[in-house]
Amino acid sequence: VLQAQKLSSAEVEIILTACRKKSREIGMPMDIAVMDEGGNLLHFERMDGAIVGGIALAIDKAYTAAIFGMRTEELGRGALPGGPDFGISSSDHGRIIIFGGGVPIVVENKILGSVGCSSGGSAEQDSTVAAAGVDALMKVL
Amino acid sequence: VLQAQKLSSAEVEIILTACRKKSREIGMPMDIAVMDEGGNLLHFERMDGAIVGGIALAIDKAYTAAIFGMRTEELGRGALPGGPDFGISSSDHGRIIIFGGGVPIVVENKILGSVGCSSGGSAEQDSTVAAAGVDALMKVL
Amino acid sequence: VLQAQKLSSAEVEIILTACRKKSREIGMPMDIAVMDEGGNLLHFERMDGAIVGGIALAIDKAYTAAIFGMRTEELGRGALPGGPDFGISSSDHGRIIIFGGGVPIVVENKILGSVGCSSGGSAEQDSTVAAAGVDALMKVL
Amino acid sequence: VLQAQKLSSAEVEIILTACRKKSREIGMPMDIAVMDEGGNLLHFERMDGAIVGGIALAIDKAYTAAIFGMRTEELGRGALPGGPDFGISSSDHGRIIIFGGGVPIVVENKILGSVGCSSGGSAEQDSTVAAAGVDALMKVL
Repeated sequence: VLQAQKLSSAEVEIILTACRKKSREIGMPMDIAVMDEGGNLLHFERMDGAIVGGIALAIDKAYTAAIFGMRTEELGRGALPGGPDFGISSSDHGRIIIFGGGVPIVVENKILGSVGCSSGGSAEQDSTVAAAGVDALMKVL
Repeated sequence: VLQAQKLSSAEVEIILTACRKKSREIGMPMDIAVMDEGGNLLHFERMDGAIVGGIALAIDKAYTAAIFGMRTEELGRGALPGGPDFGISSSDHGRIIIFGGGVPIVVENKILGSVGCSSGGSAEQDSTVAAAGVDALMKVL
Repeated sequence: VLQAQKLSSAEVEIILTACRKKSREIGMPMDIAVMDEGGNLLHFERMDGAIVGGIALAIDKAYTAAIFGMRTEELGRGALPGGPDFGISSSDHGRIIIFGGGVPIVVENKILGSVGCSSGGSAEQDSTVAAAGVDALMKVL
Repeated sequence: VLQAQKLSSAEVEIILTACRKKSREIGMPMDIAVMDEGGNLLHFERMDGAIVGGIALAIDKAYTAAIFGMRTEELGRGALPGGPDFGISSSDHGRIIIFGGGVPIVVENKILGSVGCSSGGSAEQDSTVAAAGVDALMKVL
C-alpha cells in the first residue's frame, strides 16, 4: 500500500483560526471551506455577515484546488478563450472555479487538501484569506 | 440571535404592482420573480404573453441578485474573459446569471431579497422593470 | 393546426383568490403554484408563514398534475410497491409527486393546467386548497 | 417587513460543542451540519474518523429539518408505503432525508435553523447527537 497523510481536525482548526483572523483584519466576512485530498468536505463555516452566494463558491473553490492541486486563479489563467483549458469551468457539473480564492495544501509534492474562501469582496481578498490559512498550517507541519 | 427582517406578502404585492405597470408602459410582458434573502422563491408570475424561456431566467436572476446582493449586470461586468469573476456563470449548477434583470433589495446594508425579470426584450428592459419594483418598495419602507 | 386554450392571468387570479380564501379558512398558510398544460410555471406564491419546504413540492405537485392530467394522490395509488407505477416518483429528475396537493384543470377532456399546494399540514389540506382554486375557475369557464 | 431572527456564529459554536461532546460520549465520530432557516449552510464539520458518506447525508438531513421544521425521522414515519408522504424522499433533487439525524431549531413556532448528523452508526445515534446540539442551544436562548 501507499502511505498517505490526512489533515486532522486539530490542523483544520489551525487553518480556520488564521483565516478568521485575516478576514477580520481586512474587514471582509468570509465563507470558508476546507477539503481533504479527495475533494471531500472537512469543514465549512459562514462567518457572521458573509454572503449566501459564497457558500457554493467557497466549497467549489476548495474542491477545484484540492482535485487539481493548484490555486484556482492559476487554473484560470489557462482557461481564458484560446487557452489550453478554456471551458473547464463548466465541466464536472460546473464545480470547477477559475478565479481566486482556492488554495491547495501541498506537502512534499503530495496534495494534502485545500482551503476555499468566498465573500462579497474581491477574488484577491478571498485568496489572501485562504492563503493565510494554508500558511499557518505550513508553519506547524 | 441576530435580528433580521423578511419581506411580507403585502410588500411583495407593492413590488409586483410596480413591475406590472412598468412592463405595460414599455410594452414588454415579463416573467417576474421575487425572492427572499436566502434565495428561496416568494413569488413568480408570468404575465400574459411572456415567454416560457423567461421562467428559469427570471427565477435565476432573482437568485443571483439575492445571494450576492448585487445587480446581475454588475456581476456580469466582472465575468468577462480576463475579469475577476470569469467563469462564475457556470458555478452553482448554472444558476448564476450575468446579464441584466436581477436587482437586489438592500436596506441598511442588509440584503432583504431581490426581484428578477426576463422577457423576449432586451436585458435593459428586464432590468428597468425589476428596478421599478424595487424602487416602489423602497419608497414605502 | 389544432386549436388550444390557455389560462389567462385573470383566470390565474381567480384560482389564487379562492386558494388563499380556503387556506385562511383552514388556518394553514400555503405555497401555491399554478402551471400551464405544458408543465411550465404561470404563478407561484408563498403566503406569509408558509414553509420553505413547500416551494419545490407545490411546484412539482402542479407539474405532476399538469403533465399527467391527474390528481397527484390518484397517481400515488398506482405507485405503491407492487402497483403499476411503482418507482415513478423518482423519474423525471424526481419531479413526480405521488401524494395529495396537485389538481389538474381539465375542460372538455383537455388539460388546461394545474394547481399545486404544499404546507406544513396534511396532504388532504393541501389538496383541499388546490381543489378550491380549480373549482372556482370551473364556475366561471 | 416581518421581523425574524438568525443564528449567530457564537450560537452555532454552542451547538457544535454539545454535538462533539455527545459524539465522544457515545464513541461515534460524526459529520455535523448546521443550517439557517432558509436551508443554507452555516457550518459543517467532519470529526476525525467520520465517514465520507456522511457528508452529503448530514447536510441534507439538516436541509430537510430546516425547510420542513420537522425531525427527519418524523417526516419518515409518513413516508412509508401507504403513508401520506410516500415518495417525498426523491423530491427536491433527492435532498429530502427520511431517517433520523436531522433536528430543527424551533423557537416560538418559528424555524430558526437545524442540525443534521450522520455517521457509520445508527440513525438513533445520529439523532441523539443532533438533538444534544439543539438542546444546548435552547438552554441559552
